[in-house]
Amino acid sequence: MNVKNPTERSDLQEDLSEFQEIRTMQDMTLALFGATGDLAKRKLYPALYNLYLDGRLPENISIIGLGRTKLSDEVFQGKVRESLHDYSRRNVRASRLEDFLEKFRYCVFDATADDSYQNLLEMIESREEELGIPQNRMFYLSVAPGLVDLITSNLNSSGICKNNGWKRLIIEKPFGSNLETARQLNNNLSKTFSEDEIYRIDHYLGKPMVQNLKTLILANPVLESLLDHNQIANVQITASETVGVEGRSDYYDKSGAIRDMVQNHLLQVLMMTAVYLPEKIMDNKTRAKKTEILDSLRPIRKENAYQNIVRGQYEAGELQDTPVIGYREEPGIDPASANDTYFAARLFIDHPSWEGIPFYIRTGKRMDQKSTQILIEFKNKITDTEVLEGISPNLLVLEISPNENISMRMNMKDPSSNRFKPAWINFSTNAENHPEAYELLLHDAMLGNSTFFAHWKEVELSWKWIDPLLEAYQQELLPLYFYPAGSTGPEAADLLLEKDQHKWW
Amino acid sequence: MNVKNPTERSDLQEDLSEFQEIRTMQDMTLALFGATGDLAKRKLYPALYNLYLDGRLPENISIIGLGRTKLSDEVFQGKVRESLHDYSRRNVRASRLEDFLEKFRYCVFDATADDSYQNLLEMIESREEELGIPQNRMFYLSVAPGLVDLITSNLNSSGICKNNGWKRLIIEKPFGSNLETARQLNNNLSKTFSEDEIYRIDHYLGKPMVQNLKTLILANPVLESLLDHNQIANVQITASETVGVEGRSDYYDKSGAIRDMVQNHLLQVLMMTAVYLPEKIMDNKTRAKKTEILDSLRPIRKENAYQNIVRGQYEAGELQDTPVIGYREEPGIDPASANDTYFAARLFIDHPSWEGIPFYIRTGKRMDQKSTQILIEFKNKITDTEVLEGISPNLLVLEISPNENISMRMNMKDPSSNRFKPAWINFSTNAENHPEAYELLLHDAMLGNSTFFAHWKEVELSWKWIDPLLEAYQQELLPLYFYPAGSTGPEAADLLLEKDQHKWW
Repeated sequence: MNVKNPTERSDLQEDLSEFQEIRTMQDMTLALFGATGDLAKRKLYPALYNLYLDGRLPENISIIGLGRTKLSDEVFQGKVRESLHDYSRRNVRASRLEDFLEKFRYCVFDATADDSYQNLLEMIESREEELGIPQNRMFYLSVAPGLVDLITSNLNSSGICKNNGWKRLIIEKPFGSNLETARQLNNNLSKTFSEDEIYRIDHYLGKPMVQNLKTLILANPVLESLLDHNQIANVQITASETVGVEGRSDYYDKSGAIRDMVQNHLLQVLMMTAVYLPEKIMDNKTRAKKTEILDSLRPIRKENAYQNIVRGQYEAGELQDTPVIGYREEPGIDPASANDTYFAARLFIDHPSWEGIPFYIRTGKRMDQKSTQILIEFKNKITDTEVLEGISPNLLVLEISPNENISMRMNMKDPSSNRFKPAWINFSTNAENHPEAYELLLHDAMLGNSTFFAHWKEVELSWKWIDPLLEAYQQELLPLYFYPAGSTGPEAADLLLEKDQHKWW
Repeated sequence: MNVKNPTERSDLQEDLSEFQEIRTMQDMTLALFGATGDLAKRKLYPALYNLYLDGRLPENISIIGLGRTKLSDEVFQGKVRESLHDYSRRNVRASRLEDFLEKFRYCVFDATADDSYQNLLEMIESREEELGIPQNRMFYLSVAPGLVDLITSNLNSSGICKNNGWKRLIIEKPFGSNLETARQLNNNLSKTFSEDEIYRIDHYLGKPMVQNLKTLILANPVLESLLDHNQIANVQITASETVGVEGRSDYYDKSGAIRDMVQNHLLQVLMMTAVYLPEKIMDNKTRAKKTEILDSLRPIRKENAYQNIVRGQYEAGELQDTPVIGYREEPGIDPASANDTYFAARLFIDHPSWEGIPFYIRTGKRMDQKSTQILIEFKNKITDTEVLEGISPNLLVLEISPNENISMRMNMKDPSSNRFKPAWINFSTNAENHPEAYELLLHDAMLGNSTFFAHWKEVELSWKWIDPLLEAYQQELLPLYFYPAGSTGPEAADLLLEKDQHKWW
């Protein structure tokens, strides 16, 4: 017998431990600050409900909603019920709905008033007693950035965080507006919560495609062979939106695409791609490796930023045959605003795994289509010959949203013309009704698994990388390019790739 | 700039020369022996017609049909027309039909009568003169095997082959019935035709999927990365038919699956697979490399044949809910026949490129489905874990017929169950109306390109490999396993693969 055994890979199997739910789910309190807000309504209540239906909530959980409006428990539960009807991915089942809603209580809350915290402490304790659950307390802050410091320090001083059990803090973006403010924020949080106790939500890390990258590759050795460093020409990460500024003009005109999308989401997807794709560099510490990648991201100096960065702003244009206004005409936006609604960059990761492979990232509002995807372009080994007429590079596309999808572009011979032509192959499974990002992330946080949350090191390094660009903005070292709404962005972004004889796909 | 240029591969580009039509098409005579036979009617006339429509016939060609029946040119042309209506892949266009049919003449022919050859010579010469074409003469022998020697020696003695131009002989299978008879036949042919002038048709070599294997891989670097020797667990080549013996009982009961399918078609597909798949071993001499592979095919001694070979014969059974009779009940078959209608083998190629990778081949009549395919099973690097529950080996399937298709089986995560499950991905292009094997092969022969014809060395080596098995048959060293019509073959064939912990897919 001459057949070899499959390669032993016990090391890889060990690596998977961080993905396995070895932790047990403990009973707990979830205090939700911003309980009447948009995020809670659209995402958090539906996520909790779907986890409930799947039996993935703690057996006993006390959920306390906090908001400024005065509401009775019944009215609050009614609002939760309404949000399920409007936004749950699965139909609401009457039979178990009351049992689910019974977990919710409401606490009227003013972040600046000491007695609010006392009321909260009393409610938490009385529910803990009532339900007979330990003092495990999770605080979800879905509030204005300015309130985060205030609330966490009061959670400390009020005694709420002096509990006999674990405590966890979940916070939403933004985490600071530059390196300095991010450090301040983190220092303040650190007075109450240790790094282990802080769960910084980046909902891109909750997308199933992003979460499953590693296991997908492990489960398919063919993908692993394919994603060979020597075969990859470049990696393109795109997060394009069709929407405009959407009533968040105050926040958006200050942050721009660079803070709203790049510092967090795009750099997170870049890290996840770089960590998992050439699988050689992964080990069982995803977050440590992500830091390694981000630390290797070649810095862009403000003086040369214009060579590798394109910022843009949308002008009036047409979206699906409907005229739309320009950014400066949007309500609440400064008519002379130099804010960016588009950002593209040409990046290099100075890490042995990615030597010589450019990463192109881009994001924009009012683009021609809504799509978040990772695209890998493979090298073309052979140039067009008579026999191979019509060939084009092989592409692998991992679509993250709106659909989850993997597709590959191959060159197939067209039998009638006897020429090659590119053909797309989709190999998605049925992605209907898959868990939403917030479901996966809430569940992980409840289990205490922080693999898919942003570590402070990641946040710090990303701001460190971003800061020179913010300076370049301020010192007007980076031109602002305009693009019509409904287009693929400014032409300057195309020229960025032409330097490398590449193009956006 | 840190971007590397794509690897230079000028060597590969040179390799493609044998696939490029650097040859020019010359005017010629095509003498077709067996002009009223089944092959001519079903395959050759439609192939010529479609080549004609594509402008791929010589500008001036004289086609002379030969048969025992007495026919006028008009009646013969009528038969050709009828065959186009019945079998052409493209609709017959009235406008150019007469021009096409005008190329055909008929010559009544008795292979044993000297004056038949004189008549033929006269007709060839008079048409050459009439059309003003050179004495390039191609002889297509679609006749009973017993007549091949006789006709070729007479082509010589009659002076037909003493022409001022090139001459070519195209012959159909079988090429001998064992090593000895094949050698005899080849020696006899050699008296009139050199090896360069002999085009041994194996229509499996005319299938577009088989012909395009090399360029498909070159055009898709991702396929090349995938087809890494270290990643392949085994290769399975299947040619299954649903039909039974189909009125060819005389021939078939003597030849069996081993001569009808294995010695020629299956070994040819095996060679093509082994030559092209790990692309490292190919160079621009496909046929030389094929010989190298066949020469490396580990011999099977008759004493041990039973360990690596399974022969079978179909019994009565059911095919698509219709009862069908067993082989021994077929008209014209010896009711005690020990002939094989099924053949499976477990093979090893003692070549560095294929060390340790078993090749499993099988063919059968009255199987559950009609399909010719090459399947590559990849190694599973990681065994089932909780996180990778449900994974199964990756498979790449190159379907040769009845459809041309490439598909791959990947493990995709089912979002609802969070388990992996295998999903098939098809990446065929629109394969409707693609050229048939005989079109491609006739065209190649007209151009004098013998890449996709069986070289004598290949035929010789294949019989050399087959001969011990034929002895094992005669000496009853190989059991005959029975299988019901409409099944996947005898169980013994499954056990053959179980030795290696593999299975037929």
